[in-house]
Amino acid sequence: MAGFRQLSGDEMGRLTLEAYAAADRHPVTLMLHNIRSMWNVGSMFRTADAAGIGEIILTGYTATPPRKEIEKTALGAQLTVPWRHFADPLEALSALKAEGRKVFGLEIAENSRSYSSLQPADYPLVLLVGNEVDGIGDELLAQCDGVLEIPQYGTKHSLNVAVAAGVALFECVRLFLREG
Amino acid sequence: MAGFRQLSGDEMGRLTLEAYAAADRHPVTLMLHNIRSMWNVGSMFRTADAAGIGEIILTGYTATPPRKEIEKTALGAQLTVPWRHFADPLEALSALKAEGRKVFGLEIAENSRSYSSLQPADYPLVLLVGNEVDGIGDELLAQCDGVLEIPQYGTKHSLNVAVAAGVALFECVRLFLREG
Repeated sequence: MAGFRQLSGDEMGRLTLEAYAAADRHPVTLMLHNIRSMWNVGSMFRTADAAGIGEIILTGYTATPPRKEIEKTALGAQLTVPWRHFADPLEALSALKAEGRKVFGLEIAENSRSYSSLQPADYPLVLLVGNEVDGIGDELLAQCDGVLEIPQYGTKHSLNVAVAAGVALFECVRLFLREG
Repeated sequence: MAGFRQLSGDEMGRLTLEAYAAADRHPVTLMLHNIRSMWNVGSMFRTADAAGIGEIILTGYTATPPRKEIEKTALGAQLTVPWRHFADPLEALSALKAEGRKVFGLEIAENSRSYSSLQPADYPLVLLVGNEVDGIGDELLAQCDGVLEIPQYGTKHSLNVAVAAGVALFECVRLFLREG
């Protein structure tokens, strides 16, 4: 049996900020619409950095950096992940589609498909995540090319939004690298 | 193009507490050793409910329900997911192994394998998650049958522990259902 030993920070081969900015990021954009908790926003910046995605789009009343509450959970990732803010989510979706991206809502919805069903033709893509309580809303869902759903096996049928985004983002990246 | 509409709670076919207790859970156990943040503990209860796993094991100084801080993020899942507490994590691992479970640490470590590499023979399994800052530690890693690693593509080489556990748990369940 092989021995297991945690790696120190120096051993992990972390990228410097400059190298990371230049590195090819995965063709995945995370859009956060009307996220109430800045801790969730910061946590999703941290996840976006780890997953190596291209950009975060902040819309509606989602707070934007710099904010102490975001930094508390982003741990610096608010400086490494490119982001843009649009007050109007419909304008953001128009701009993202004009850039050639498909838009997938992350939601429990009619006519959804599995979060693990992405195909090469679905990239580059935007993963759209909505409010912690109210979700994405039907007006924005109508603008989506598809809705991805994480299966819910328990009694609650809900996940923390930052956990759900993490599960879906890493699956977007895993499937891109497998198929791409 | 199909229309998308968010489902209401009544439409989701949620299980009642009784039905859920009786339902076959996935053969995955989550073990939380020395988790400092009760918010993270509660969030992992919520994720464990959604992923339909069998049990949570709490060891070391990880807080146990009932605690208001856990309930704030568990949103009731502390009542739906069975859990046990062991002060000594080595005793917990011995008991879990004696029940026939393989133990996988979730860590960035030497001789790790991908979080997406699980095979049918790896189940039933325990996913062991450690302290937010110090990780699992080499003493407990030495007791693991394997170490699973979520690839880190960015500058930080870390994820929030509740996000990392969510990514790994849903992959454990996805692979079990695919292979099982």
